[in-house]
Amino acid sequence: MPTHATIHQHHLGWDHNEPPVAHIAPGETLELNCQEASGGQIGPASTLAQFRDYDTRRANPLTGPVYVDGAAPGDALAVTVTGLATSGWGWTGVLPDFGLLADAFPQHHLIISRHDDRTIEFLPGVHLPLRPFIGTLGVAPAASGRHSVIPPRRVGGNMDCRDLIAGSRVILPVEVPGALLSVGDTHAAQGDGEVCGTAIESPMTCQLQIDLLKGAAPAYPQLEVPAGPLRRETDQGFLVTTGIGPDLMTATRDAVRGLIDVLGQRHGMAPEDAYCLASVSADLHISEVVDAPNWLVSAYFPNAIMG
Amino acid sequence: MPTHATIHQHHLGWDHNEPPVAHIAPGETLELNCQEASGGQIGPASTLAQFRDYDTRRANPLTGPVYVDGAAPGDALAVTVTGLATSGWGWTGVLPDFGLLADAFPQHHLIISRHDDRTIEFLPGVHLPLRPFIGTLGVAPAASGRHSVIPPRRVGGNMDCRDLIAGSRVILPVEVPGALLSVGDTHAAQGDGEVCGTAIESPMTCQLQIDLLKGAAPAYPQLEVPAGPLRRETDQGFLVTTGIGPDLMTATRDAVRGLIDVLGQRHGMAPEDAYCLASVSADLHISEVVDAPNWLVSAYFPNAIMG
Repeated sequence: MPTHATIHQHHLGWDHNEPPVAHIAPGETLELNCQEASGGQIGPASTLAQFRDYDTRRANPLTGPVYVDGAAPGDALAVTVTGLATSGWGWTGVLPDFGLLADAFPQHHLIISRHDDRTIEFLPGVHLPLRPFIGTLGVAPAASGRHSVIPPRRVGGNMDCRDLIAGSRVILPVEVPGALLSVGDTHAAQGDGEVCGTAIESPMTCQLQIDLLKGAAPAYPQLEVPAGPLRRETDQGFLVTTGIGPDLMTATRDAVRGLIDVLGQRHGMAPEDAYCLASVSADLHISEVVDAPNWLVSAYFPNAIMG
Repeated sequence: MPTHATIHQHHLGWDHNEPPVAHIAPGETLELNCQEASGGQIGPASTLAQFRDYDTRRANPLTGPVYVDGAAPGDALAVTVTGLATSGWGWTGVLPDFGLLADAFPQHHLIISRHDDRTIEFLPGVHLPLRPFIGTLGVAPAASGRHSVIPPRRVGGNMDCRDLIAGSRVILPVEVPGALLSVGDTHAAQGDGEVCGTAIESPMTCQLQIDLLKGAAPAYPQLEVPAGPLRRETDQGFLVTTGIGPDLMTATRDAVRGLIDVLGQRHGMAPEDAYCLASVSADLHISEVVDAPNWLVSAYFPNAIMG
């Protein structure tokens, strides 16, 4: 049982002047009720027409901030995810001017999916393993003012690391007294890269244990990921598409374009569906970053997803 | 049994005027004897003093080229790795002015390792699973002249994709008549990224089956990776270090620096050994590439390696 009552309050910017909604001592646990990334604009019955009215100013609400007693600049905050309770539904969308291939996908697109405690039905005949994790977890930056909740920073935030699952521990550098922890943007599944800009955006209740490591701030966030396979869907192997060239971003885009092409050729999938499917299921790896002047980025797609 | 006698001849540049050393028909198999990446300059008893005389002009010799009957520009060459026979030893080195963190590691460094059919003893007490794969596999580019064997290109080459293991199939765009396939740079193990610039460089005999897909050239190489876990070492989980910022290369460097720091703090490992260990065992993932303006690159290190 968490030490504290469930926290529901949320805010829409990183600002160390945001008043804390709870205080916690190191070693204690807490429970946070997280909205999905639209902040309630999208629900399980939403339509594409409604999605066209999406207001990005309301996106990525964060539950918190929580003041950690004794936390001071230079310390490390260690947050262990002890439980994630999912909600049975999620949404994946393409928004104009957002996402890795925004130039090729200028239109809104929306996929609402349902899941049980094991499997997500993403599209008819397209099933993913449920793999809930926390997309945004961070502490307040020292820099004054209100900072966007979209980019991650060295203090964490919207890291979208798909392995911040139950059992993982994340270690963040503290920059302000009390650390001011906030959490949100929970995902039912995502591939490394989150290429269309959204994952399976799903409300979730998060249980966390908070620890403090005095004077141990890392330069950037670190994770400890528990034992167990990084992926469950390895039993039918992987399709890997690549991009090769002197710029990692261009190579990344080429690898994802290649995957969208193959999903269309092999499965007749519409490009916007394939883009969303890549976002929630394909992992971007940097295969080599030393054979100058060309680097190679790979997109790993688990074949099991297409049955 | 391969259709052809084992091919030993090698060359040191991609050039479509290089005379073929063998001809093969689609559907046939062949066997290639590949030197390690130094081309015989380094052996199992080599010393650091000898490594200081390393001549990069002799690096990455390629076995071939093999002419594939009927292959024409616009076709796809499909190469299945049907067997890899390892040699019991390999080397990992840091060379000045080469590698992801060349600025921080200006000195030569050399690690010679031994392996049996399952495990590599990389350093005293540091063991990796043997996971042999082909680092360089490509066809000749259409562009005239002699092109360096170091960078990969859209026709493949030094891709260093750690999943080009036995059982995998790679699909390459053909740019010249006969395709002109060459293979080399075999690795006993490597992490995604090959960050120090070398893997466990190890001579190997490769058995390949060659197929031709008429008119099916992909834009960039594609791989089909067989069923089975991408990693065997998941049973003790992962340490993940990150880099965050608006440039993927800088974020990649920060993630690897973070891992080298942690390996030093936790295990007292010298930075140059940690850099080499990261190169042969840690995987670089792009966790998110959409939360503008900051991207997040992660280095995944399997804890099992340190026991």
